[in-house]
Amino acid sequence: MNKRVFCAALCALTMALPVCAATPTALVIHGGAGTINRDALTAEREQAIRAALDRALDAGHAVLAAGGPALDAVAAVVVVLEDSPYFNAGKGAVFNAEGVNELDSAIMDGSTQRAGAVAGVHRVRNPVLLARAVMEQSPHVMLVGDGAEAFASAIGMALVEPAWFRTEERWQQLQDAKARASAQVALPRSYYFGTVGAVALDSNGHIAAATSTGGMTNKRWGRVGDAPIIGAGTWADAGCGVSATGWGEFFIRLHVAADICARMAYRGDTLTAAAESVVLQRLPAMGGDGGVIAIDGQGNIAMPFNTAGMYRAWIKPDGSRGTAVYANP
Amino acid sequence: MNKRVFCAALCALTMALPVCAATPTALVIHGGAGTINRDALTAEREQAIRAALDRALDAGHAVLAAGGPALDAVAAVVVVLEDSPYFNAGKGAVFNAEGVNELDSAIMDGSTQRAGAVAGVHRVRNPVLLARAVMEQSPHVMLVGDGAEAFASAIGMALVEPAWFRTEERWQQLQDAKARASAQVALPRSYYFGTVGAVALDSNGHIAAATSTGGMTNKRWGRVGDAPIIGAGTWADAGCGVSATGWGEFFIRLHVAADICARMAYRGDTLTAAAESVVLQRLPAMGGDGGVIAIDGQGNIAMPFNTAGMYRAWIKPDGSRGTAVYANP
Repeated sequence: MNKRVFCAALCALTMALPVCAATPTALVIHGGAGTINRDALTAEREQAIRAALDRALDAGHAVLAAGGPALDAVAAVVVVLEDSPYFNAGKGAVFNAEGVNELDSAIMDGSTQRAGAVAGVHRVRNPVLLARAVMEQSPHVMLVGDGAEAFASAIGMALVEPAWFRTEERWQQLQDAKARASAQVALPRSYYFGTVGAVALDSNGHIAAATSTGGMTNKRWGRVGDAPIIGAGTWADAGCGVSATGWGEFFIRLHVAADICARMAYRGDTLTAAAESVVLQRLPAMGGDGGVIAIDGQGNIAMPFNTAGMYRAWIKPDGSRGTAVYANP
Repeated sequence: MNKRVFCAALCALTMALPVCAATPTALVIHGGAGTINRDALTAEREQAIRAALDRALDAGHAVLAAGGPALDAVAAVVVVLEDSPYFNAGKGAVFNAEGVNELDSAIMDGSTQRAGAVAGVHRVRNPVLLARAVMEQSPHVMLVGDGAEAFASAIGMALVEPAWFRTEERWQQLQDAKARASAQVALPRSYYFGTVGAVALDSNGHIAAATSTGGMTNKRWGRVGDAPIIGAGTWADAGCGVSATGWGEFFIRLHVAADICARMAYRGDTLTAAAESVVLQRLPAMGGDGGVIAIDGQGNIAMPFNTAGMYRAWIKPDGSRGTAVYANP
């Protein structure tokens, strides 16, 4: 019985002994970073988004509170966010240039550094569950396109009609994006963002991370962003886990998620210092924007972003929880 | 005029002044790592492979010797290796389960950390040139599948018939692989490896890396390996560049290429210590095999592999060059 399992057992018997401080759990989730317009975001919509974040947080926390694995917790969170129409992942994903929802996801188990990822799928209701199946039921890490859906069918995963993912708002964003593209007018950043993700620390001290996205409105040419790239948008190892959201190309070029963890492992940076250095300095210096959520082995949480807002929610090791949209929650 | 440009100019005028030691160039290339069978590798074939490596080395060195950029040098190397039937990239790539050559490639410019990658293309003669076009002519880093080929057509890149890539030897390997799969017999490792790559340091002190592969014989489901994953099979930054070859899934899970460079940047490891630690310790501890080629900003070269052999060749800053197949060149 390792120390954490011992402590968890002890906690169950004695409640809140000081020794139990060695077995914290923590959970942090995001629903995308970007120029979240205070005018466009009505009080009703903000309330609905915060409620969705809360439901997702509850789903993940239920796993952790029962002593379940971080991997299950992050998958449970992302499924709720994929099924919500408010985020750019699963239902409610943006449309590509062909008018199709094209979905990417990744998941990683820090304790084993096993990982799974899918990109360019069109008929998988919960891409994060397919990413997990790639990790657990195939010899591979990454499957893309029709092949990934063939694998989903081969393992008995039900596919949905592409119409499942459609929301009127995203469809109108595509029409507007095409009009702007013709007029060579830049897109509002809100058309790009909304990626979802989760990072968890479980009572065994294991960290996991997961990310899911529809990518960029009006994207072409089979573009793949950072979300399904292990090390860029999603990473977990023994001491650190990260899920990112933002302008994916920059996150790949800086391999943001793994770089944050490498700064901790090799240079002794704190989680906050590592995450802020990458997100608030390196990323904007290159021209990229977005944010990350991150957890370390002690249950510390970091949530830096260099945009106007990032949908996020957390439960800290002390049990305190919250949701936030802007820099000032 | 920066110091390196000044030195290069001075060198051209004066030849071999000691000051020019500050402007080394270096080039290292690989044609895959694996269980290279001394019996199956006839003297004639080994000679032909070494000759192909030499031609590729010459192509890259010509760029560097003329003061050209590392990015051009690695692209020139990889084009020669893709066009050679002896390696698992471009012509001579392995076949997937559908009997199709399915190609992946990536390129990265360390001086700007710009990168381009393509995966799952079937009609692009030189995938490394498409990866470079993605970097230079699109707003994206990674394009996959039919979309990547649509982009190739859109920028006027000629596509070839899929038959261009076919070699009888690879076709027979596929038939054998399918028979072994039916009989549930493991594949010889030689059916997996043969990825090609190059890393260069130019006279301006810039590093670039490129990798190209056909992946694994009989691969299914749109499997993508490490070669086109920025940070896993291919990475370059201001002080370090890496191209990898081996069992791709493990290279993704350890984000091998970027991890080697992170160990140098954040912990002060030498290039050799960083590369050997990852390839000779972490990778086999996880069950993975393969090798890497790497260069640092001083022109040091590392070429560790944990397999029986790795096709490789190099030109060091002092002008010495060589080709090697086994641990003992």
